[in-house]
Amino acid sequence: MAAYIESLQHLAEQFGQLQGVGRKSAMRMAFSVLDMSEEEAAEFAQAIMDAKRKIHLCPVCQNLTDRELCHVCEDPQRDRGVICVVEDAKAVLSMEKVREYRGVYHVLHGVISPVNGITPDQIRLKELLARMEDEEVREVIVATNPTVEGEATAMYISRLLKPFGVKVTRLAYGIPVGGDLEYADEVTLYRALEGRRDV
Amino acid sequence: MAAYIESLQHLAEQFGQLQGVGRKSAMRMAFSVLDMSEEEAAEFAQAIMDAKRKIHLCPVCQNLTDRELCHVCEDPQRDRGVICVVEDAKAVLSMEKVREYRGVYHVLHGVISPVNGITPDQIRLKELLARMEDEEVREVIVATNPTVEGEATAMYISRLLKPFGVKVTRLAYGIPVGGDLEYADEVTLYRALEGRRDV
Repeated sequence: MAAYIESLQHLAEQFGQLQGVGRKSAMRMAFSVLDMSEEEAAEFAQAIMDAKRKIHLCPVCQNLTDRELCHVCEDPQRDRGVICVVEDAKAVLSMEKVREYRGVYHVLHGVISPVNGITPDQIRLKELLARMEDEEVREVIVATNPTVEGEATAMYISRLLKPFGVKVTRLAYGIPVGGDLEYADEVTLYRALEGRRDV
Repeated sequence: MAAYIESLQHLAEQFGQLQGVGRKSAMRMAFSVLDMSEEEAAEFAQAIMDAKRKIHLCPVCQNLTDRELCHVCEDPQRDRGVICVVEDAKAVLSMEKVREYRGVYHVLHGVISPVNGITPDQIRLKELLARMEDEEVREVIVATNPTVEGEATAMYISRLLKPFGVKVTRLAYGIPVGGDLEYADEVTLYRALEGRRDV
């Protein structure tokens, strides 16, 4: 489709690479770019480069940030005694909508998945263990997704943290099984947080 | 959402400007960019600038192109005696999938719409009239969309072209091939009935 307008086709292919974007949507987006002014297109292109260049992992919690520390880790009001462990940075966004949560995070950037060849050393567990040296830590809330792999990772973490004597909890089922934190509404997430249990 | 990672938020807003992209999708796309390599992101940004800079309107048919003439107008095999008039460049893509069509196009870039303040002089009608000077033109197929505005524009064009003595036709209405009567709306069914032919 549109192979004859090479630069349009190329742009559509770029959009098509993005997660969840099909061929037709990609072409529609490419057309949208043509409707922009030259300045708007330049700003768009710049935003892509900026995001890519500026955003890195927070050295403490591994969350994405464009500052030195992420906004949670640099906030003196947050309780460093409670660490919520999530699969990815999107889950932090979802959790942050629950204003009641005042602890900090740890982003794993994946889950253990033997099927996909993801072993424990390929996710940010070493960094989590390092944080356990801090005696302030009282509780680790494992908020991996309620999928088979998320569950297995939660179990692995709870065994891993046993020697440190911290309380390890898991978000309550309130999140639909097989779902994704990204799509959970605030109320469901709040209930899940409230009903968290020991594992 | 994610306001605290400024460059991520900014990128999501850029995606959100695109037609048919909601807030959640925009954020997911922004995250997708972070998963790209630096080179991939650079290529993406470049593709936006390239499309914007290189693509312009074909001086003959007003279709989008990144060459001097569009691929249809520069093709000596196409029949310049038949002009298919469409609302936008996307419609050309759709028509081109019908390999049987060997004529050329004229892209209006809009439809007449008094409600939205679009008058006849704001769409590419002048350019269409100019093409009528070419005595080769035998037929103009008006393929504007089957909407109120598309219909009105088709009527307007047919009156406009009367003095030139060319045949003016309109795409047939009917039930889509592979469709089901059950899902056809009344207006479509009525048109299909009206346009029935001997078999």
